[in-house]
Amino acid sequence: MLRPLFFFVTLLVCGLSAQAQYEANWNSIDSRPVPTWFQDAKFGIFIHWGVFSVPAWGPTKSAVYEQYAEWYWWRLLDPKAATYKEFNDFHNRTYGKDFKYQDFVKGFTCEMFEPADWATILEQSGARYVVLTSKHHEGFTLWPSAQSWNWNAVDVGPHRDLAGDLSQAVKAKGLHMGFYYSLYEWFNPLYKSDVNKYVDDHMIPQMKDLVTRYKPDVVWTDGEWDHPSETWKSTSFLAWLYNESPVKETVVVNDRWGKETRSKHGGIYTTEYDLVHDQTSVGKKIEHPWEECRGIGGSFGYNRNEQLSDYSTSEKLVHILIDKVARGGNLLLNIGPTADGRIPVIMQQRLADMGGWLRVNGEAIYGTRSWDKAPAVTADTKVYYTRKGNDLYVICTKFPEQSLTVKGVSKNAKVSLLGYSGKVAQAASGSDLKITPPSLNPATNPCQYAWVFKVANAL
Amino acid sequence: MLRPLFFFVTLLVCGLSAQAQYEANWNSIDSRPVPTWFQDAKFGIFIHWGVFSVPAWGPTKSAVYEQYAEWYWWRLLDPKAATYKEFNDFHNRTYGKDFKYQDFVKGFTCEMFEPADWATILEQSGARYVVLTSKHHEGFTLWPSAQSWNWNAVDVGPHRDLAGDLSQAVKAKGLHMGFYYSLYEWFNPLYKSDVNKYVDDHMIPQMKDLVTRYKPDVVWTDGEWDHPSETWKSTSFLAWLYNESPVKETVVVNDRWGKETRSKHGGIYTTEYDLVHDQTSVGKKIEHPWEECRGIGGSFGYNRNEQLSDYSTSEKLVHILIDKVARGGNLLLNIGPTADGRIPVIMQQRLADMGGWLRVNGEAIYGTRSWDKAPAVTADTKVYYTRKGNDLYVICTKFPEQSLTVKGVSKNAKVSLLGYSGKVAQAASGSDLKITPPSLNPATNPCQYAWVFKVANAL
Amino acid sequence: MLRPLFFFVTLLVCGLSAQAQYEANWNSIDSRPVPTWFQDAKFGIFIHWGVFSVPAWGPTKSAVYEQYAEWYWWRLLDPKAATYKEFNDFHNRTYGKDFKYQDFVKGFTCEMFEPADWATILEQSGARYVVLTSKHHEGFTLWPSAQSWNWNAVDVGPHRDLAGDLSQAVKAKGLHMGFYYSLYEWFNPLYKSDVNKYVDDHMIPQMKDLVTRYKPDVVWTDGEWDHPSETWKSTSFLAWLYNESPVKETVVVNDRWGKETRSKHGGIYTTEYDLVHDQTSVGKKIEHPWEECRGIGGSFGYNRNEQLSDYSTSEKLVHILIDKVARGGNLLLNIGPTADGRIPVIMQQRLADMGGWLRVNGEAIYGTRSWDKAPAVTADTKVYYTRKGNDLYVICTKFPEQSLTVKGVSKNAKVSLLGYSGKVAQAASGSDLKITPPSLNPATNPCQYAWVFKVANAL
Amino acid sequence: MLRPLFFFVTLLVCGLSAQAQYEANWNSIDSRPVPTWFQDAKFGIFIHWGVFSVPAWGPTKSAVYEQYAEWYWWRLLDPKAATYKEFNDFHNRTYGKDFKYQDFVKGFTCEMFEPADWATILEQSGARYVVLTSKHHEGFTLWPSAQSWNWNAVDVGPHRDLAGDLSQAVKAKGLHMGFYYSLYEWFNPLYKSDVNKYVDDHMIPQMKDLVTRYKPDVVWTDGEWDHPSETWKSTSFLAWLYNESPVKETVVVNDRWGKETRSKHGGIYTTEYDLVHDQTSVGKKIEHPWEECRGIGGSFGYNRNEQLSDYSTSEKLVHILIDKVARGGNLLLNIGPTADGRIPVIMQQRLADMGGWLRVNGEAIYGTRSWDKAPAVTADTKVYYTRKGNDLYVICTKFPEQSLTVKGVSKNAKVSLLGYSGKVAQAASGSDLKITPPSLNPATNPCQYAWVFKVANAL
Repeated sequence: MLRPLFFFVTLLVCGLSAQAQYEANWNSIDSRPVPTWFQDAKFGIFIHWGVFSVPAWGPTKSAVYEQYAEWYWWRLLDPKAATYKEFNDFHNRTYGKDFKYQDFVKGFTCEMFEPADWATILEQSGARYVVLTSKHHEGFTLWPSAQSWNWNAVDVGPHRDLAGDLSQAVKAKGLHMGFYYSLYEWFNPLYKSDVNKYVDDHMIPQMKDLVTRYKPDVVWTDGEWDHPSETWKSTSFLAWLYNESPVKETVVVNDRWGKETRSKHGGIYTTEYDLVHDQTSVGKKIEHPWEECRGIGGSFGYNRNEQLSDYSTSEKLVHILIDKVARGGNLLLNIGPTADGRIPVIMQQRLADMGGWLRVNGEAIYGTRSWDKAPAVTADTKVYYTRKGNDLYVICTKFPEQSLTVKGVSKNAKVSLLGYSGKVAQAASGSDLKITPPSLNPATNPCQYAWVFKVANAL
Repeated sequence: MLRPLFFFVTLLVCGLSAQAQYEANWNSIDSRPVPTWFQDAKFGIFIHWGVFSVPAWGPTKSAVYEQYAEWYWWRLLDPKAATYKEFNDFHNRTYGKDFKYQDFVKGFTCEMFEPADWATILEQSGARYVVLTSKHHEGFTLWPSAQSWNWNAVDVGPHRDLAGDLSQAVKAKGLHMGFYYSLYEWFNPLYKSDVNKYVDDHMIPQMKDLVTRYKPDVVWTDGEWDHPSETWKSTSFLAWLYNESPVKETVVVNDRWGKETRSKHGGIYTTEYDLVHDQTSVGKKIEHPWEECRGIGGSFGYNRNEQLSDYSTSEKLVHILIDKVARGGNLLLNIGPTADGRIPVIMQQRLADMGGWLRVNGEAIYGTRSWDKAPAVTADTKVYYTRKGNDLYVICTKFPEQSLTVKGVSKNAKVSLLGYSGKVAQAASGSDLKITPPSLNPATNPCQYAWVFKVANAL
Repeated sequence: MLRPLFFFVTLLVCGLSAQAQYEANWNSIDSRPVPTWFQDAKFGIFIHWGVFSVPAWGPTKSAVYEQYAEWYWWRLLDPKAATYKEFNDFHNRTYGKDFKYQDFVKGFTCEMFEPADWATILEQSGARYVVLTSKHHEGFTLWPSAQSWNWNAVDVGPHRDLAGDLSQAVKAKGLHMGFYYSLYEWFNPLYKSDVNKYVDDHMIPQMKDLVTRYKPDVVWTDGEWDHPSETWKSTSFLAWLYNESPVKETVVVNDRWGKETRSKHGGIYTTEYDLVHDQTSVGKKIEHPWEECRGIGGSFGYNRNEQLSDYSTSEKLVHILIDKVARGGNLLLNIGPTADGRIPVIMQQRLADMGGWLRVNGEAIYGTRSWDKAPAVTADTKVYYTRKGNDLYVICTKFPEQSLTVKGVSKNAKVSLLGYSGKVAQAASGSDLKITPPSLNPATNPCQYAWVFKVANAL
Repeated sequence: MLRPLFFFVTLLVCGLSAQAQYEANWNSIDSRPVPTWFQDAKFGIFIHWGVFSVPAWGPTKSAVYEQYAEWYWWRLLDPKAATYKEFNDFHNRTYGKDFKYQDFVKGFTCEMFEPADWATILEQSGARYVVLTSKHHEGFTLWPSAQSWNWNAVDVGPHRDLAGDLSQAVKAKGLHMGFYYSLYEWFNPLYKSDVNKYVDDHMIPQMKDLVTRYKPDVVWTDGEWDHPSETWKSTSFLAWLYNESPVKETVVVNDRWGKETRSKHGGIYTTEYDLVHDQTSVGKKIEHPWEECRGIGGSFGYNRNEQLSDYSTSEKLVHILIDKVARGGNLLLNIGPTADGRIPVIMQQRLADMGGWLRVNGEAIYGTRSWDKAPAVTADTKVYYTRKGNDLYVICTKFPEQSLTVKGVSKNAKVSLLGYSGKVAQAASGSDLKITPPSLNPATNPCQYAWVFKVANAL
């Protein structure tokens, strides 16, 4: 618990002097604490939007990675991809083999894009921050980047500053706004021929422009795996970001800064990779702020091919949020808008359901930390714990028909059920606290998906 | 209650003799009973799909009628429409004022249309029949109609027999398949200049082709209001349909055969009109098989402008179904597929939720009739009744926290809760039956939205 | 030479009485003389424009018929066509095999169409009449025909009344305006299933609408070969045209009214068929007003595939005009505008060159008749004759280096060279007139392509 | 006349040693003689092709500069342009105001592009070299330039290496092939923000790639006027081009290397600027190899708005060629292909006519030099002179009806008329030579447009 303290001290010092500078090496960079707002926020919305939203297609029966609609261009051209044939079959059948990926940009129209409506939807989901793909591996930028002339959303396609318009609307709702940014660009000839020049002349100027222009609270990099962080000049960029940029006090970054950096350097750790390899991180404790991103369905970019069965239910999504939070992490849940600028209503439904649950139970999520004494989480876990101050939250992803015992609790503990005004029977036996769930029926049930017993003064 | 009996007799007679012919007058036509399958089915899915699915836009804050995306063409050209300006503003801004409605046909691509997948979705909703717009007022046919050369789905747009492909897939799932067909066509010059010629040369041949080709179980006409049924030659067509067509035994028609026919002549009565004028038919008893159609949102054709708040919740839809069925009617719930051939996932979600409810409670819906002794339905009604044989179904759209009394029930009655294996406490007092709901909690609750107490041997 | 006289008498009679009616049989119809304006005009411009102008493609190395770009749709679908493979190869390579002919209509934009400019170009070619394809075999009409709903230039494509706009502009220049009209429509389902109904309900109303709306001076039918004139009800239509239509006095029709009618019935005879079969009509005398149509290149509809070598030179076109006129016929020279509404500049060049020649030599063309005593025309003929009043015109398609003798000429004959003010040496010997060409050099040469010696008072 | 000699010596020296290097300063660069092939060639074809070929529009009634269709993008965005309103009116009316210039790239299809056919047309025009816009001011490259990712003809639009395909075909015909290259790019953000970086990272690599890849005989730069040659690093590039590039021996460049360089530095001088300002260079003698470029019409890029009257006649074009050559220059005559890849047939006609004239009279053009003793050319000049070896060519742009006297001719002179086998009467009087034109008539006239008297042994 030293970090937040150190952080505030740093802020004070910064106010007095400009000398507390970070240096362009990992030791120095890693010494900066992750701003508290991030760990308190717990729940963010990821948005994958780009030219890939036009074909908006991926095979839903393939390996997880291969379902990503945002990888359409790559799959189409990579004969080694397991889904190479499926992508090419779809493409040739639908658009013809002479239709190139870049031709899709004409269909990226965004005529229905209403940033203020999006911001309302995002805010009502209970999420506290938003991360938009300012540029995915395709290299297309959602803002008028000078480095991506004629391959950005103002020059071609919607002819609109999507990144700027959304950033403004999201911030107006009081949410944190951040940007995803892919370090590499699959097919950029400069990247392919001279990565150093690419980094110096294209990538770094582009990232600084993005930060300076929109002052994001999150800089969420990706596409780092081809090169070590030294090639990407990551520490140098981060030193600028932490020392000089307009968001130096508040910005949060992740750990994707070079092929050696994940879960080692940078800001928060990201765990998508584990997830994809089906090593669900259940039970693993990570002693560092971290975040897991995932789609509502199997793709990040909008996939028209996904049917209802491909979308996680609201119940499952609430459970995922609980799992991440109970283990100390954040959930960055992804939505994929359409090429005409809408958030698919099914995604709105999922977000609204999560927001509904959080309106009743948010107290057990926001601002909490994982509880050291909680039993290790397993695949069968139905009871999760979070804590905040002296209070403990017992989160049941299955309603306990019988009584429930929490171990290691103070005698002064007082149990209640969030969203329910009736009493909850409790009985202490040493540091064991036995909770007997109240008799709820469909008319008195405060929520669906999961129920939270708050144990006040438990710690 | 004589009709079903008479119907079976008719069928027998038909088996023996070809002489029982209907004549081309309403007395004769109206004497044909509605085939029983229809009243037993209770729940059908309406599908509005056509060129209007391309702009797929309507103003969601306007009067109900004016929200219909399928009326786009009309609103655009009708200066008297309340939403004339809104439609034109959207159109000119998005497509340019020189872009005509017919130009939309190029965007009706349907490349994602998978009839078998649709059929699965439809079947799992619990619906027992499907009605597709074979031709809406725009005159565009979803089948290769010779009368609509170059204005049908095979000649232009998707270049595919949408009506035929869907019909085949739906029937393969054991559902009844029917077609909506608009008698009039807003802008067909032949209709506008010579309605008689239009009827003889265009409409009647087209309807007969549709029936002969696809053998639909429902012929759901509309767009009849400009002319009396005599002009449309409706009785003559119906005599053909009932006497000679390949579906003469099984086909169901509605009451939209001329401006004087609604709720008077034809087959089932349709009540959309009442609904739209906000005279919700709650409480009204109709002594004739009837059906009410409505959208999940405010539009029938897909409306990209509709957000989550514009869609009815699954709970509301289940309640609507219950209301219609308890009063003796059917619900024809509409979905609006997209121009690229998908059922929007939010609609799949609604249908799946209804299917889920019906899998538990369908016994109280399918094959039932309204109960004569049920209290009149009011806007506050939370308890509905249906009956089948000697059994009574008490359907609670709000879970009764206290006990519930049903009046007019036999002493032999035996109460259970559908989907729940536990006992339900009951107490008879004369013909009053007092039911005490069991103690359910979120883990034992058999369903959401509404709960059905079956009173076996109640009648 | 009785006809013109009879014609004037008819006109007089018509002025006095309404009884001189034509009957719906060939005897009566054929008795109507061709209005004199037509034979005096000599030179008309044919315009092939339609949806076929969008692909605007034909193989230039095939048989003449198979080069016609306006037959694109037919060739694409007719496996027996010699060029079936070439058309399909081009189509599939360029547009994809799922792209249907009807989809081309979107590219028929006509945004550059300036009718007044066209009319100027047409007038300056020296042509005296224009014939536009109001509807080719594809069935697409260039005017808002009620019979071709959604398959006409106002409903789809340019959204403009091309036929009406051009007609008005051409007439304003003092030229005669006419329309080509295809009786049959390759793929119209009504035509294919019920030709009688097609004729009654589609074709005849359409033709009458065309005539009534635009009052054309020429009704140039085609596509008659599948059926006898009885099926097309041709005599009945012509009786209406001659007796009742607004153009009954002035209209000229051709001989394409049924598979038995060419060069037998109707108005002027048309000779394209002979031409195509390479039986150039050189030398054949036709004792009836006739007209030969042909393209500047090998196609009528614009063919983007045609290069300079595929276009006839201006010299050749002037020679063709001379050949037709000397033998008593008219030339209807075709141009094929582009899909965006332009007359290709190379066609403007050809027309301007013809106009330039006619400005010097038109006296030898307009209003003339063939000369009975002229030597039979052969493939080697370089000297042609026309006459007007007492004057004879000796037209040399190769400049005579030596002297030239004309036989059968009056002694009072006086020779001059059109466009040349100097004297021309002449010498009579009996009825033989020997002409010695003047000494021209490039600076004094009055024209190119052909030179006309006028022999005044020769007859 | 020292230069050619010096040139051959240089070549010899180069063969022996690598030390004869050019340095990156104008003194050194300017010391390199223009390769002789260029001055001998006399006639080249300029080709303007790019995204501007899609709108292909300019106002034909405006000042010359403002007619340039290739400047469409600039005019559209420059409120100070005299034609700003006309361009915007056309654009908004035809494409809508939300359609941006970059959106045109989709229409740059080139499906009719046949490089071998183009090469035949070019070769038959009599031209000896070709210069294609590899990149115009719009920045779009016709080859797959790594510096113009997603803004080149392989990534978007035709998806084809237009520059490479044409280069290969033209060289196969034995013609010299060169490329136009615009130094500046109107709207490239890198150019606008940091010209030095643009030059180093974008322009120079791009030019070197172009040269290395296609080995052009001409590097025809333009768009140099914003900056001095120092900024463009022109001498440095030229030193590379002359010392190291694969075309160091043969390449020809022009004088557009910085705002101070026209008619001062580089290779050949270019005179378009004078021409445009209507100071026709008639009469001016330029003591340096030079070339004048101009369109057949008023635009370089294809302009659909140009009608026949906007195109120069073949006669005028031949006269222009004669004027340039007689004064010691070259003519670079421009053609503007269409967006679908064709050379408009009217341009083919003009080229063929020039080729026809040159086939008779090319001896008086190719390999000649201006004649020092020729009378000064004025606007009324009808007689021009060229010389080659001891022979003099007297070129008459109007056929001399009377005799013609040439002054300053040797007594041994022998006169003939090119293309004419007959004798030409001549009479000497001192150094005056009187030529009496032969008596030509249309049948014996060897050519049109201009006639050449060759005076053998005149010098």
